[in-house]
Amino acid sequence: MGKGIAYGVGVGPGDPELMTVKAIRLIRENDVIALPGQEPKETTAYQIAVQMVPELADKELVPVYMPMVHDKKVQQENHEKGAATIASYLDQGKNVVYLTLGDSTVYCTFSYLQHILEAQGYQTELVSGITSFCAAAARVNIPLTEWQEPMHVIPAVHRLNEPLDLPGTYVLMKSGSKMKEVKDLLRQSGKKVSMVENCGMPDEKIYLDVEEIPDESGYFSLIIAKEQ
Amino acid sequence: MGKGIAYGVGVGPGDPELMTVKAIRLIRENDVIALPGQEPKETTAYQIAVQMVPELADKELVPVYMPMVHDKKVQQENHEKGAATIASYLDQGKNVVYLTLGDSTVYCTFSYLQHILEAQGYQTELVSGITSFCAAAARVNIPLTEWQEPMHVIPAVHRLNEPLDLPGTYVLMKSGSKMKEVKDLLRQSGKKVSMVENCGMPDEKIYLDVEEIPDESGYFSLIIAKEQ
Repeated sequence: MGKGIAYGVGVGPGDPELMTVKAIRLIRENDVIALPGQEPKETTAYQIAVQMVPELADKELVPVYMPMVHDKKVQQENHEKGAATIASYLDQGKNVVYLTLGDSTVYCTFSYLQHILEAQGYQTELVSGITSFCAAAARVNIPLTEWQEPMHVIPAVHRLNEPLDLPGTYVLMKSGSKMKEVKDLLRQSGKKVSMVENCGMPDEKIYLDVEEIPDESGYFSLIIAKEQ
Repeated sequence: MGKGIAYGVGVGPGDPELMTVKAIRLIRENDVIALPGQEPKETTAYQIAVQMVPELADKELVPVYMPMVHDKKVQQENHEKGAATIASYLDQGKNVVYLTLGDSTVYCTFSYLQHILEAQGYQTELVSGITSFCAAAARVNIPLTEWQEPMHVIPAVHRLNEPLDLPGTYVLMKSGSKMKEVKDLLRQSGKKVSMVENCGMPDEKIYLDVEEIPDESGYFSLIIAKEQ
C-alpha cells in the first residue's frame, strides 16, 4: 500500500466564497482533515470551510496543536508531534488535508510540518489560497500595487526599528500589540494608510486614515501603506 | 434605472481550479464580461475562466485593449478609452466583470480603469484571485515566507540597480528581458533561488537553482529567492 500525501491547503481570508475550487475538491475527496488548533471545530479555517463544504463536519477532524511559545525546544517538539500525528494517517495510505487561514505558502504553520514530513520521506503538496493582504486591499477597494512599485510585506511589526522609507507599498501584519509605535512610523512615512481588522469576518473593521486607527487593536490587523 | 458595477475579478494564475467560487459566480450571474486584450477569446484570463465556466463563451465579451506603450499620453488615452467602453455598459444598468490573470489588486490593468471610473462616480469592486507568486511557491512546493521573514516583491527587474540584500524573501517578476544581469544579482545575494516560467500553463518550466536558469527567458518568469 502506498503512503498518503499531506496537503497544505489555504482556505482564504474569511469569506467562504474566496475558497478555490481545488480546496473544495480536496476537502470533499478526502476523509482526514487536519486543523491548526486544539479543538478542530473552533479553528477559523474550519469555520470558513464548513460554510462552503457542510460535509466537512462529518469528516475525521484531526487537531494539530502548535501553540506559539518562546522556548525553541518546546516549539520544535510541538512541530514534531504535529508531524507525527499527520504521518500516522499517511502510513495508513490516507491523504491528510491540512486547512489553513489565507494561503499555505505565506507565514503558514503547515511549513513547520512540511519540513519535517519531507525530511522523513513523505510526499507533501501546497494548494494556494487568497492571502490576507490581497483580500484586505480588495475590501478597501484599492490596488495593493500599481505600475512598477515594489511591495514589502513585514510580518512582525514588533521587530520594526527602522523607517518605512523604501519605495512602493508596505504591508504590515500583526501590528496589534505595538500599534502606537507603528502609527508613529506610518505618520513619518508619508504614505497613504488603510487598515482592515478581521477581514471578511463578521466583526470586520476598516480604517482609512492613520489617525482613525486606535492605539489598541486586534491580532488580525492588516495595514496597507501606499505611496501617495 | 441604477448604474451597473464594474468588478475587477482575478481568475488566478493559470490552473482553472485555482479560481474562487466568487469569481465563478460573478461570471455566471452577469452578461457582460470585459477582457484585457484586442481579441477577448485570445486573452489568458478568458482561456483560464472558460475551462471552469463554459457558458462564458456565449456571454457578451468586451475587448479592453491597453497595450504597453512608452508614451504616457497615449497610455492615458488608452486607459480612458477602456474606461469609456466599460462605462457605456454601466450606464445601461449592466454590471461589467473585468477578468484578469492572477489577483486584481496586484499589478493589474484594472487599476487604471478603476481610478478613472471612480473619479467619474461609478461604483467599482475588487475580487481577489490567487497571485502568481503564491502559486509559483506552491508549484515549487516551498513556503514563500516563514517565521518572521519579510517579503519583497520587485515587479520590474529592469529597474534593479542595487543588491538583493534585504533580509527575507525576494520575489522578482518579469525578469525575462534582463535575465543575465538578474542572475548575477541572485548569485551575489547568496539566497536560494527557484524560478517558475508560465506557472500552471501547459508550457510551464521549473528551475531549482540559479545556474539552471537560461539567460533568455519568457515574460511570465517568476523568481523566488529565499534566505538559506
